[in-house]
Amino acid sequence: MAAIHAANTGSVPSYGGDEFTRELQTVASEVFGTELAIFPVTTGTAANALALSQLVPPYGAVYCHETAHIVTDECGAPEFFTGGAKTMGLPAADGKITARQVASAIAFAKDMGVHHVKPAAVSVSQATEWGTVYELAEVSALAAVARQEDLPVHMDGARLANALIHLGCTPAAATWQSGIDVLSLGATKNGALCAEAVVFFDPARARDFERRRKQAGHLWSKLRFVSAQLLAYFKNGLWLDNARHANAMASALAQGLRSVSGASLLQSVDANEVFVALPEAVVVALEDQGFGFYRWPLSAPPSGVAIRLVTSYATPRAQVDEFLAAAQSLVRG
Amino acid sequence: MAAIHAANTGSVPSYGGDEFTRELQTVASEVFGTELAIFPVTTGTAANALALSQLVPPYGAVYCHETAHIVTDECGAPEFFTGGAKTMGLPAADGKITARQVASAIAFAKDMGVHHVKPAAVSVSQATEWGTVYELAEVSALAAVARQEDLPVHMDGARLANALIHLGCTPAAATWQSGIDVLSLGATKNGALCAEAVVFFDPARARDFERRRKQAGHLWSKLRFVSAQLLAYFKNGLWLDNARHANAMASALAQGLRSVSGASLLQSVDANEVFVALPEAVVVALEDQGFGFYRWPLSAPPSGVAIRLVTSYATPRAQVDEFLAAAQSLVRG
Amino acid sequence: MAAIHAANTGSVPSYGGDEFTRELQTVASEVFGTELAIFPVTTGTAANALALSQLVPPYGAVYCHETAHIVTDECGAPEFFTGGAKTMGLPAADGKITARQVASAIAFAKDMGVHHVKPAAVSVSQATEWGTVYELAEVSALAAVARQEDLPVHMDGARLANALIHLGCTPAAATWQSGIDVLSLGATKNGALCAEAVVFFDPARARDFERRRKQAGHLWSKLRFVSAQLLAYFKNGLWLDNARHANAMASALAQGLRSVSGASLLQSVDANEVFVALPEAVVVALEDQGFGFYRWPLSAPPSGVAIRLVTSYATPRAQVDEFLAAAQSLVRG
Amino acid sequence: MAAIHAANTGSVPSYGGDEFTRELQTVASEVFGTELAIFPVTTGTAANALALSQLVPPYGAVYCHETAHIVTDECGAPEFFTGGAKTMGLPAADGKITARQVASAIAFAKDMGVHHVKPAAVSVSQATEWGTVYELAEVSALAAVARQEDLPVHMDGARLANALIHLGCTPAAATWQSGIDVLSLGATKNGALCAEAVVFFDPARARDFERRRKQAGHLWSKLRFVSAQLLAYFKNGLWLDNARHANAMASALAQGLRSVSGASLLQSVDANEVFVALPEAVVVALEDQGFGFYRWPLSAPPSGVAIRLVTSYATPRAQVDEFLAAAQSLVRG
Repeated sequence: MAAIHAANTGSVPSYGGDEFTRELQTVASEVFGTELAIFPVTTGTAANALALSQLVPPYGAVYCHETAHIVTDECGAPEFFTGGAKTMGLPAADGKITARQVASAIAFAKDMGVHHVKPAAVSVSQATEWGTVYELAEVSALAAVARQEDLPVHMDGARLANALIHLGCTPAAATWQSGIDVLSLGATKNGALCAEAVVFFDPARARDFERRRKQAGHLWSKLRFVSAQLLAYFKNGLWLDNARHANAMASALAQGLRSVSGASLLQSVDANEVFVALPEAVVVALEDQGFGFYRWPLSAPPSGVAIRLVTSYATPRAQVDEFLAAAQSLVRG
Repeated sequence: MAAIHAANTGSVPSYGGDEFTRELQTVASEVFGTELAIFPVTTGTAANALALSQLVPPYGAVYCHETAHIVTDECGAPEFFTGGAKTMGLPAADGKITARQVASAIAFAKDMGVHHVKPAAVSVSQATEWGTVYELAEVSALAAVARQEDLPVHMDGARLANALIHLGCTPAAATWQSGIDVLSLGATKNGALCAEAVVFFDPARARDFERRRKQAGHLWSKLRFVSAQLLAYFKNGLWLDNARHANAMASALAQGLRSVSGASLLQSVDANEVFVALPEAVVVALEDQGFGFYRWPLSAPPSGVAIRLVTSYATPRAQVDEFLAAAQSLVRG
Repeated sequence: MAAIHAANTGSVPSYGGDEFTRELQTVASEVFGTELAIFPVTTGTAANALALSQLVPPYGAVYCHETAHIVTDECGAPEFFTGGAKTMGLPAADGKITARQVASAIAFAKDMGVHHVKPAAVSVSQATEWGTVYELAEVSALAAVARQEDLPVHMDGARLANALIHLGCTPAAATWQSGIDVLSLGATKNGALCAEAVVFFDPARARDFERRRKQAGHLWSKLRFVSAQLLAYFKNGLWLDNARHANAMASALAQGLRSVSGASLLQSVDANEVFVALPEAVVVALEDQGFGFYRWPLSAPPSGVAIRLVTSYATPRAQVDEFLAAAQSLVRG
Repeated sequence: MAAIHAANTGSVPSYGGDEFTRELQTVASEVFGTELAIFPVTTGTAANALALSQLVPPYGAVYCHETAHIVTDECGAPEFFTGGAKTMGLPAADGKITARQVASAIAFAKDMGVHHVKPAAVSVSQATEWGTVYELAEVSALAAVARQEDLPVHMDGARLANALIHLGCTPAAATWQSGIDVLSLGATKNGALCAEAVVFFDPARARDFERRRKQAGHLWSKLRFVSAQLLAYFKNGLWLDNARHANAMASALAQGLRSVSGASLLQSVDANEVFVALPEAVVVALEDQGFGFYRWPLSAPPSGVAIRLVTSYATPRAQVDEFLAAAQSLVRG
């Protein structure tokens, strides 16, 4: 907020020719420890779909997890932005696709030849849609398969900060040093008002990307307001502090739920999301008490009802405790 | 061939304003027993993708089998023609999706709301990619689910004639009377040189379809050559005779393979395709002897190697017997 | 700014389910004196291209002025969002297309038939790209031609407030009462940080529009921040006050320039833009003195150099006077 | 026809893996005197739109004449196939754009920067839509401008054979030696049943083109039938013989019309089209007598009515004479 205010002073060039946007370029290069090209946008869907449209032809296939945001939550944006490419959702219980799966899917495509979409990119969500985090070696293995086929690797980093906290590594290690070519970096879910960015670790890959952003209506005339948010986000490690808190709260939730009888955690809690199954009556009662969460659809549901709990930089510890106490009290009847 | 020759006489209007194309309209209406609008094109991919582009918005979802031609064999044509819609491949061992599956997928989409593609159509392949045929009641049940959600139902009828022979019903019963709104009718796989058609059983649905065909480069200036093929195809039931022979040959193959030890049929043989698993050595030897077939990739392969045998209007009985004799002899060593 | 701050308090539903967005619906209906559906977005290009994608099929033609923003300034966004439709730029010295021109272009299209894109919409920019304003009767005449062909009429209202001040009429009179079906309403150029909106005067036309917005990456999770800006924009007539000031400053500029020898106004100054030709040496000197304006490319340039001066809600009278004094002094040598 | 028959013998590989298609590659290389990649398709619209989709990004601009087939006669196919690119129609009375015009349009685009579509290709129609033919030096000059901006040059050669006859040069001289990168070669208007082709003079430019053809539904399973037509077309110079006759008939028409009082030729008759203005009563009478031609819409019509006469390989000299006699007789009253 304060960052936006500061950007609202005086008369400045529009469409990104401002000093905020230039400074962002410098700051992001420092944060990631490498030369890069960064393009602010204002939604995660735009970041993902624009990134893919730069990497993938209309007849291309993007290999990713079947629950990836690009598959299920973007209303077909990748298909629309690429002019027809397909997202190929691969199954995996923990939300993490494997190098072996991707290699096998690519082999199938090659067998099919011209009749099938052409392998064109691999996309990993870090953290995943299941709140789990890829180990660096897992990302590197995926990237190695991609590299062998000359495919670029995209990372949907809507929750990258949360993953970094879990991994305890540098942004560089988690991304380009593990073979990531293009990153959708999210800030909105981690404190910003409306700030996401597409980051190309090889600036040459960004050729004409500004045209794609413009043609999709995502070039702001007052772009400095987005850039200013991202600058504030990176400054003094704010993004990591926010994520550290969110992860800690998720961890506390998970810890507490382990001692709630009848509750069963569905996934490892690596980031800021907790997936847990609870008896239906408990879920209903928690909803009635006003707790906010989603019921989560599962193709093979466990006993009870699966719900998703998301924590953020703004989740107070007291709220976590309150939820746990309520659940504990409800299961005891 | 003869039909094309006949169409090559004299000077005639171009772009479909010819008498062949007008006559086709009449003949097709008689064949299907209802008023309809028919548009000749020259590939099955064009027929399917154009049909879907007329039915489905860019943010739409098409429910179909995971092995449907529109999913795996058209290099993303449906996504391209619709400007971004998604084909949602549902699993089913026999190649036939069920009303229940579709209902459940639609319910999931509704839960997801605006973030997910919108249910927009159901597409069934008749016969299926696995050589099986939907019973009329199965198609009707799918159509009923679609109707409830106000979704149109598309049929990929690249092998419709083969299905008709199996079902022993009229073209009307197999299509619009079972709830099909739009049909991609194939003739190329059943004897024509290059003739497919999109058939709208409610002509009002075909509004501006001719523009889509033109914009996709599928309006022939000498359209009479395609129309003439379709006229010949329907004349005196040629399409059914061709399919009857092809089905009989597939049936003979299946029958013969049942007595080949080590051979196991993978699907019911309802149309003109036989999927069979044979010991690898046998498959290799058959290939070496010059028999033409595809090895078929299976995610959970049976013992041996799966292959697909396709019969046609032009398959001589002798060739079937020769193949069976060769297989028999090979398994006996 | 203050409005954004207010929207940053407490925990609220995301993706538009907030009270700001609901209130905007009510307020906009009051402002325009009719039931309507309003969808906030954050760039003018998005507003225009999304609006057109809702109105126009891929094989459609949009009739508009050859300098319309949708033709020259959106990097092909209308073509991209519609999946292939064409903007048909018609010439007119004052930036205003006429009913006669549009009727004639439609007649040509009809002669061409299926080979040509189909007439699908008319789009008018109010105020125009030349700083002129359509009289209400001119808009009505265009709408009448469109209505006759059953085409919707779109208004690019990036500068609608400026036009309203010039016309001295109600928002209703300038839009739906003159036959406008869909409006792209701009606020960014008139004071907002990042707020535009698509307004459907017949809510039925907005069917599934939210999906298009989502698929294009223009659905903000924190949409309340955009809605809040638009609420503040309408409140107490702020938008009109801002535009009134901008128009007055443009008028003052025009008035002053009339007495600058060698300056020749190129267009009527109806809104907040002044197009003027000045001797090249004067233009160069003004640039050197740090005045900010664009040189304007003209196919048939007048003597001297054409420049565009734009005023805004934030243009101080002193700056206008300073510019005029500088110009006056320069032409006098 | 005979060629198609010959291709209908025996059992052959599908989707272009046949010997006809391989031989076409060889023959076309000989005809054009260079290594090339040739892809048969079946409509001119497909050839043009597929070629452009390979050359031009969604945010690109294609510079061409305002009457080019890609602008006015393909129902938006180039926009659709490219996913949003714009055809920029430039005016020129004789149908031939100039290097100067293109250079100026590119300069304008560069001034506009990211807001405008990016210059991406130049497309020339040879012969033009006005029946005129570019001199080799004119094509080279256009190509030189394109080369300077690193843009590829496309030729719409729906009537290339007619142009070759007029120019009296080799196919090589008229195409790649004049700077053409990609050619849409038409045969349908010059005798074939349904045969067009996209020719890449640098095979490296054709990367993945077969996927585009497949995704657009233009890969025939029985591609040999198209390839066979093109082989017959090239054989013994048949394409040039056909064009020579058509041009001679057009020339005879033009010659005869020069002595018809009240008739005025509107364009130089370089190929197989004659544009002529005649008194309306004469035109009506000719129509009544059953002569087939189009009335041609002109923005600034001459006195009388403009019509287009097209000759072909199949136009008998007697028909020309009959038409001239009728016209002569009608003007004399």
